[in-house]
Amino acid sequence: MENSLAENISVNLFTINNLWMMIATALVFIMHLGFASLEAGLTQSKNTVNILFKNSIIPAIGLVTYTIIGFSIMYPGETHAGGFFGFAGFGISPGENGLTKAYNIGYTYWTDFLFQGMFAATAATIVSGAVAERIKLSSFLIFSTIFVGLVYPIVGMWKWGGGFLDTLGFYDFAGSTLVHSVGGWGALTGVMLLGPRLGKFRKNKISPIPGHSLPLAAIGVFLLWLGWFGFNGGSVLSADPALVSLVLVTTSLSASAGAIGAMGAAWSFLKKPDITMVLNGILAGLVGITAGADLMTPLESIIIGFISGIIVVFSVIFFDKIKLDDPVGALSVHLVCGIFGTLVVGVLGTKAGLEQFWSQVIGVVSVGGFVTIVSYLLWMSLKLTIGIRVSPEEEHEGLDFSEHAMEAYPEFEKVR
Amino acid sequence: MENSLAENISVNLFTINNLWMMIATALVFIMHLGFASLEAGLTQSKNTVNILFKNSIIPAIGLVTYTIIGFSIMYPGETHAGGFFGFAGFGISPGENGLTKAYNIGYTYWTDFLFQGMFAATAATIVSGAVAERIKLSSFLIFSTIFVGLVYPIVGMWKWGGGFLDTLGFYDFAGSTLVHSVGGWGALTGVMLLGPRLGKFRKNKISPIPGHSLPLAAIGVFLLWLGWFGFNGGSVLSADPALVSLVLVTTSLSASAGAIGAMGAAWSFLKKPDITMVLNGILAGLVGITAGADLMTPLESIIIGFISGIIVVFSVIFFDKIKLDDPVGALSVHLVCGIFGTLVVGVLGTKAGLEQFWSQVIGVVSVGGFVTIVSYLLWMSLKLTIGIRVSPEEEHEGLDFSEHAMEAYPEFEKVR
Amino acid sequence: MENSLAENISVNLFTINNLWMMIATALVFIMHLGFASLEAGLTQSKNTVNILFKNSIIPAIGLVTYTIIGFSIMYPGETHAGGFFGFAGFGISPGENGLTKAYNIGYTYWTDFLFQGMFAATAATIVSGAVAERIKLSSFLIFSTIFVGLVYPIVGMWKWGGGFLDTLGFYDFAGSTLVHSVGGWGALTGVMLLGPRLGKFRKNKISPIPGHSLPLAAIGVFLLWLGWFGFNGGSVLSADPALVSLVLVTTSLSASAGAIGAMGAAWSFLKKPDITMVLNGILAGLVGITAGADLMTPLESIIIGFISGIIVVFSVIFFDKIKLDDPVGALSVHLVCGIFGTLVVGVLGTKAGLEQFWSQVIGVVSVGGFVTIVSYLLWMSLKLTIGIRVSPEEEHEGLDFSEHAMEAYPEFEKVR
Repeated sequence: MENSLAENISVNLFTINNLWMMIATALVFIMHLGFASLEAGLTQSKNTVNILFKNSIIPAIGLVTYTIIGFSIMYPGETHAGGFFGFAGFGISPGENGLTKAYNIGYTYWTDFLFQGMFAATAATIVSGAVAERIKLSSFLIFSTIFVGLVYPIVGMWKWGGGFLDTLGFYDFAGSTLVHSVGGWGALTGVMLLGPRLGKFRKNKISPIPGHSLPLAAIGVFLLWLGWFGFNGGSVLSADPALVSLVLVTTSLSASAGAIGAMGAAWSFLKKPDITMVLNGILAGLVGITAGADLMTPLESIIIGFISGIIVVFSVIFFDKIKLDDPVGALSVHLVCGIFGTLVVGVLGTKAGLEQFWSQVIGVVSVGGFVTIVSYLLWMSLKLTIGIRVSPEEEHEGLDFSEHAMEAYPEFEKVR
Repeated sequence: MENSLAENISVNLFTINNLWMMIATALVFIMHLGFASLEAGLTQSKNTVNILFKNSIIPAIGLVTYTIIGFSIMYPGETHAGGFFGFAGFGISPGENGLTKAYNIGYTYWTDFLFQGMFAATAATIVSGAVAERIKLSSFLIFSTIFVGLVYPIVGMWKWGGGFLDTLGFYDFAGSTLVHSVGGWGALTGVMLLGPRLGKFRKNKISPIPGHSLPLAAIGVFLLWLGWFGFNGGSVLSADPALVSLVLVTTSLSASAGAIGAMGAAWSFLKKPDITMVLNGILAGLVGITAGADLMTPLESIIIGFISGIIVVFSVIFFDKIKLDDPVGALSVHLVCGIFGTLVVGVLGTKAGLEQFWSQVIGVVSVGGFVTIVSYLLWMSLKLTIGIRVSPEEEHEGLDFSEHAMEAYPEFEKVR
Repeated sequence: MENSLAENISVNLFTINNLWMMIATALVFIMHLGFASLEAGLTQSKNTVNILFKNSIIPAIGLVTYTIIGFSIMYPGETHAGGFFGFAGFGISPGENGLTKAYNIGYTYWTDFLFQGMFAATAATIVSGAVAERIKLSSFLIFSTIFVGLVYPIVGMWKWGGGFLDTLGFYDFAGSTLVHSVGGWGALTGVMLLGPRLGKFRKNKISPIPGHSLPLAAIGVFLLWLGWFGFNGGSVLSADPALVSLVLVTTSLSASAGAIGAMGAAWSFLKKPDITMVLNGILAGLVGITAGADLMTPLESIIIGFISGIIVVFSVIFFDKIKLDDPVGALSVHLVCGIFGTLVVGVLGTKAGLEQFWSQVIGVVSVGGFVTIVSYLLWMSLKLTIGIRVSPEEEHEGLDFSEHAMEAYPEFEKVR
């Protein structure tokens, strides 16, 4: 009888944990709407259909490829070779214990798959924003499919699948490196090979190309912040009251401090309270805290967010200076703050220390090196075959017309 | 002592289950914003206020009528006559055990009511989209009130209230038939009696009337997908880890495959990657899996979604061909894929078999027959009395002006 | 062994309760997007960047100031002076028991902080809407910081921190007075000192200044309704199945009845079914039920919502009549219905009675008096130093240009 009581208590806890993980999955899902809104809002209305299309189909392709191969690559069990690559076979199947706490005290096999699958597609979505307004749809879809189906899970396995970075002591709580900088490196190679949008850099002058709808951008950022409750909170992998609630506090405080840091930097240096900087400051704070959200005190999370918010302002200016054209600031938010957030785990919080710092550096460099090389090969293969950039005429008319023969706002008169 | 421990364990489980059901209720609630956004985005801006008005007031009227009579009709207890109709009395009241697990191990009476009440209004909202841009507001409100307050709960009782379809073995997990096709049949009769919008079919040519804001449509679809986490996940009626997580996986995979199927069909046959088709493909996949979300493997859910996504493209073309004008594709998504999803329960999944298939056919036909007849009588009564369609002048000016004397976007210059 | 079983059962319940409170926190968070969307939608597009800016930075500043001093002022423990003011020291720290049920059976210290912190910023956001389209950004930011960091927590302590209103028996379940009317009084003083927008009241004529995007306003209201699931549902402070589910029912029914009441009042008296009235009717119902959401039957909540919906229509007309210019109706929704909702606790529900009614009056008056005086002093100090209103030229051009040098919709042609 007592054993049966103990068993029931344990099943209850499993049910609670699994419930939180399912809700976290729903929250990460809504990040895809966040990315779609943000990217659409910060670009021109003549490319909006294209952006909505990419951001709708990527999560769909991402979940299906993750079903077929991604999940099995990312979590290969004991089958991997030296911690670099493994594959547990095609498809998903819960096996004998997959639906009980024998699989994991925090969730069922199905919850595990869906939570991870929702993560996977975000990496490709990050790329989407940086290469927006000039990339060929077909090439982007091919790149994204391979990126989500192969590149992301291979790298993810290095740490979260028990690979060599895990062995080395590298720490990345919810993916400053494994998600955000992975997307960032893929974006960086894409931006370099694509070149800037027409008219962005004329002679030595930078011509800002303002986004067509700031309310849409704001909706996107708030939904991303909401989604981060699940992204970071779910990365605890259980409903542990102390740990999840700490993570939600550090996450929200870092986002808040990011907004304040970016506001301060923009107001001081750009001489105006720039809403796009505040919005990117929120995201910078969120990316910055992601690697160590479970390790920081509230004060440390405010410091991390505040610095991230300042970084993002100068990073945006810097990428413009070196003529890398990133329409939505994805490189600054996801790559730069992703790296900062990863490294700061060696400087602040309960794991701070020189040894940890070097582990973080190794993680950043190895992931960066691999993703950059593979992305370069992918983009180059596409460039040399079907091409990656639309023609200047198509770009001028907008991708909505040339790629989709549709308009996002057919009834409204445009200024230009 | 042991009895008291066992009791506490059982209360904890009840609390967990009830928590999930309350969250599922919130998720279903947000589907109303999804419908409002989708419908507004896919129609003309001169009718946007009207659409927002309908979609704001319908859930309100729906919840209140469901309080007064709907819930008591849908769940009449033992009072029903031959499984066709029953009524447990006006109003809602938890009775003696309504707030404990003696009522239901998964939720309290209040949670039960609110979850079901949120469902109820969706049926009328489905009608709203199909009859948009030419229906008279007052007639629509009368129709909707009766549809939500009487028609939906009577039919719902046939299966979920323990009526004759339940006895016959008909299976409809979360409402491909009981919610989506109910709305669809009401919409079909409305569309037939109303006739097409002015200018949609000229001579033998179909003139597409594009929606005024695709970002709004995309926001709507993503919110609907999010809401489906609760719509299907909550239909488990408890937080059972294995079953709820399976349902979330099949639901999301079917939505994903729906997007891919619709993209493929549109790109192949319409020769363009049509964002509205991808968005409706997602919804098609969601409606298609709804009847059997708890019965399918991941692979089967991908198949169902993929077929649903293809179906929706050809269905939209078909309804245009036969000159039934459905501005948002509601018939294709909710009626056609609702029927498909119901029948496929007899073909795929753990209940597949000829006997089950015929049960599904009986369910589809009896629900379709009843709702069509009653809707026809309702629409005709309205048509013969106060009229159901605005005048051609009012339609031309837009319902926002004629019905509401307001504009959705008073500051923006319109092309036409 | 039995003790250890009992302990585990109790930890499980704590985990469930804390889970609900964290989810409620996320729901309250999304209200900030709701406020941003609603306020932007109901105002002119030339001030949209300004509104998005305020509504993005206020929650950020709010959470950070609440970390530094707000939480310690609102919950000072035993340190307060006569129930009027206390301070538990700078910063937040869980102390010895903060992460266990010894702190509170419903949540950890971190959850407590974050839930309350999300509430805090809403008070300032209410002010934001009422003073929109003519307030100076810098002055507003200073006012808000002090309002969120000092005024709100001081008043909140009077009831929720165990202060003198709590001792007197004043009841305010989730903040009709402590949140909504606090924001409302701050807004009222601001509106009076600022004066109306240019062109709103010419001679004796009221010129309506319509909002630029009603879809954005509708998105805002639906998100606020969703957020209220957490605002009221979370105010139970545990996942208690009976109580939370009752609160969700009364909350949603009151919102629904508010929509219906406002529709009826607008259609009867203004002779048109006004969507902005229906939207404000929903909010009116939500604010009206907030003080007694746990005390009412479904029928009583419908009555409260219905009356609130009627009140809001006449209140909006009234404030226009007395030439107090409130662009979004915040005074009518949050102040007037906040007061009504507080007083109705003495008239309907399980606490109804004359003694309770007088307690409610004392609460309304003392909070109103204090917040009005302090807000007046704050606004006047700002007015006499840096000024609180932009110049007529800046107001005419729009705050987006003058304060931010940006446009919300740079590509769309404007009518005016």
